[in-house]
Amino acid sequence: MENLRASEAQRVILDAITRQDVESVSLERSLSRVLGEDIRANRDLPPYDVSAMDGFAVRSADVAGVPVTLQIIEDIKAGDMPSRVIHAGQCARIMTGAPVPQGADAVIRVEDTQVISPSSVQIGNTASAGNDIRPQGESMRNGDVLLKKGTEITPGVIGVMATAKAAQFAVFRRPSVAILSTGNELEGMGDPVDPNKIPDSNAYALMAQVQALGIEPVLLGIARDDPVELEQYLRLGLQYDVLLVSGGTSVGVHDYVRPTIEKLGVQMKFWRVAIRPGHPLAFGVTNTSAVFGLPGNPVSSMVCFEEFVVPALRHMMGHRRLYRRTVTARLAHPVESSQGRTSFIRVQLTGDSAGYVASSTGTQSSGVLLSMARADALLVVPAGSNGIAEGEDVTVQLLDGTVFQETIGFRE
Amino acid sequence: MENLRASEAQRVILDAITRQDVESVSLERSLSRVLGEDIRANRDLPPYDVSAMDGFAVRSADVAGVPVTLQIIEDIKAGDMPSRVIHAGQCARIMTGAPVPQGADAVIRVEDTQVISPSSVQIGNTASAGNDIRPQGESMRNGDVLLKKGTEITPGVIGVMATAKAAQFAVFRRPSVAILSTGNELEGMGDPVDPNKIPDSNAYALMAQVQALGIEPVLLGIARDDPVELEQYLRLGLQYDVLLVSGGTSVGVHDYVRPTIEKLGVQMKFWRVAIRPGHPLAFGVTNTSAVFGLPGNPVSSMVCFEEFVVPALRHMMGHRRLYRRTVTARLAHPVESSQGRTSFIRVQLTGDSAGYVASSTGTQSSGVLLSMARADALLVVPAGSNGIAEGEDVTVQLLDGTVFQETIGFRE
Repeated sequence: MENLRASEAQRVILDAITRQDVESVSLERSLSRVLGEDIRANRDLPPYDVSAMDGFAVRSADVAGVPVTLQIIEDIKAGDMPSRVIHAGQCARIMTGAPVPQGADAVIRVEDTQVISPSSVQIGNTASAGNDIRPQGESMRNGDVLLKKGTEITPGVIGVMATAKAAQFAVFRRPSVAILSTGNELEGMGDPVDPNKIPDSNAYALMAQVQALGIEPVLLGIARDDPVELEQYLRLGLQYDVLLVSGGTSVGVHDYVRPTIEKLGVQMKFWRVAIRPGHPLAFGVTNTSAVFGLPGNPVSSMVCFEEFVVPALRHMMGHRRLYRRTVTARLAHPVESSQGRTSFIRVQLTGDSAGYVASSTGTQSSGVLLSMARADALLVVPAGSNGIAEGEDVTVQLLDGTVFQETIGFRE
Repeated sequence: MENLRASEAQRVILDAITRQDVESVSLERSLSRVLGEDIRANRDLPPYDVSAMDGFAVRSADVAGVPVTLQIIEDIKAGDMPSRVIHAGQCARIMTGAPVPQGADAVIRVEDTQVISPSSVQIGNTASAGNDIRPQGESMRNGDVLLKKGTEITPGVIGVMATAKAAQFAVFRRPSVAILSTGNELEGMGDPVDPNKIPDSNAYALMAQVQALGIEPVLLGIARDDPVELEQYLRLGLQYDVLLVSGGTSVGVHDYVRPTIEKLGVQMKFWRVAIRPGHPLAFGVTNTSAVFGLPGNPVSSMVCFEEFVVPALRHMMGHRRLYRRTVTARLAHPVESSQGRTSFIRVQLTGDSAGYVASSTGTQSSGVLLSMARADALLVVPAGSNGIAEGEDVTVQLLDGTVFQETIGFRE
């Protein structure tokens, strides 16, 4: 099979997997999930016309010419119901959020008034009908759909859900994810240090990438380069919705994993993608599972996860936003392209809101995981590019950890 | 006390609080925490010079003139140790990650070779010393500090930690956070619907904002407008590292909360900040707690949390990146300024990597929480601005939910 382009591989993956079904969660446990049902308003809010300010509820006709002195006939606090109708020449003192009394059609804020006596106030400003009144149902109207199925649950959405008193509701399930490391040369976290072995960092980096999406993965451990052992582990892994197989550095997924995985009925969709780093990257499905064969190289593994597994897992969880956020940055130094392959270069971002500057985190040798730890973003170099010159605008994908920045970043 | 500017208020807050002490966590539970100690390498990686490619380990002098045929004296796989020295005219077949044998100083990748017999190979390319060899210690050198105290733990960092086999280590504690709602007009989540009351959405929106920072807050409930009840609740709340008091819409923190909070020994630092929405915003400290008095209005409460509580909580957790990420966007329509106050306008972002376009999420009435639910970002309008025209570049702060986007956003 020829090398797929990155976007073609993403498309193949998204076409081969399906969104999870729904489950019920409590409001308290719903952050970052995706709504599996429409949420409707269960009341009008505000329940009646209310004042948007502390001030005086008036008839707008009465304040057409100002200053004018009006009679205060009532004090209305939030939670109070007005007991009197406002007639010509009258007004009511009113607090923010309190119901506007019958007869009144505008509120004059307290700054534009001067109380003359306990029962009279001078109004200094005119106001048209509706001024500083929040009309009944402005925030929500009983029965209206407030939030559609498919909405990602942010803190603002949770505020709306609480307003509708949605204490329990449907969200899309999270897929179960298993992570399997392969290779004789790998040393497990609990094993003693052996200079002839390589610590299995991939499983933990992948674990954290999965956790960052809100999923708690299962680490199956390390399968040695033995067909029987590998088959046992793969069989176990295929009981999960998604299985991530991280190849050892010595043995590609092609050598040991390929025959075993095909024997277990996995229908492989591709084995290679034209990206760098990222050779080899494999993907297949069974009726119930999706399997990603990730490179054994730590950086390649993380980059492939970002580009291909993140969109897949987010799609399964019902998200519409599947891809890492991109921003434009100025390139601090020239970069080379990798003809025929889309390159992802680890960069740090500096600069301010006027513009980001992207500079390499150091050696791009795919073995140097520290460069990934230091990276804020991945700079994308198109496959057809002949390299990019210093000072040019480039597209970078923001990685985890870039949600916040060190400086305030705006002019107040 | 006069109205502080936003940055002055942030400074007062950060000066008044301290970073938490450290606690030990496992690698599996460490994502998004901040390292409370330096992490050192416990080995050289690679442990010796290893091949970066599948190919043949050669003496570079032997391949100065090509093509040349060399004798294959050994096969070295990853995990194997070479048993023989490469002499002039000899080479070894070598796999990626396998140790380079003595005598050899370069690797020729398999694509540039042609095997002639089981014991001889023709080399088609020259190579200088070091070619396609990853030198011992390239990824990490035993004893070196890999990650400094203060590093935010991203998936890439977790990969490095796993490489150093750091299974348990110190991170800065998360502060405990309590949320208290105040106001007679509020209806609790479990209460029946009462059209004369307002559902207490603030507590849940704040809960989610706190959760988004990785902290599980405690919801204390609703304190009614009664000095005795309020004092009991505030006393309870001051047992937490951070207390968020959300004012009812009718009764500002000034009216009921102020005398009670001062009676309890809270040293108030300010009561107002010159931002919109956001009136009133109060902040004070005891020896053990920080107290934020947030506006009762749902949108104002969320905006104040973003601008003032987020940096505080992140500082307490040891982060250096305290502020929401800002990007530049083109304004889709003119916006008005709020003279003397920095305005934060809820916007949606569209456009592609070439540039974001910011457009208002609809009414900016601070009561309309749906506009916050729909927002991708907060557009910052400086206090001294006379408004901003359509098409101008503006600074926006990215909110939760904008880590991902709907389209791939780059050219491959």
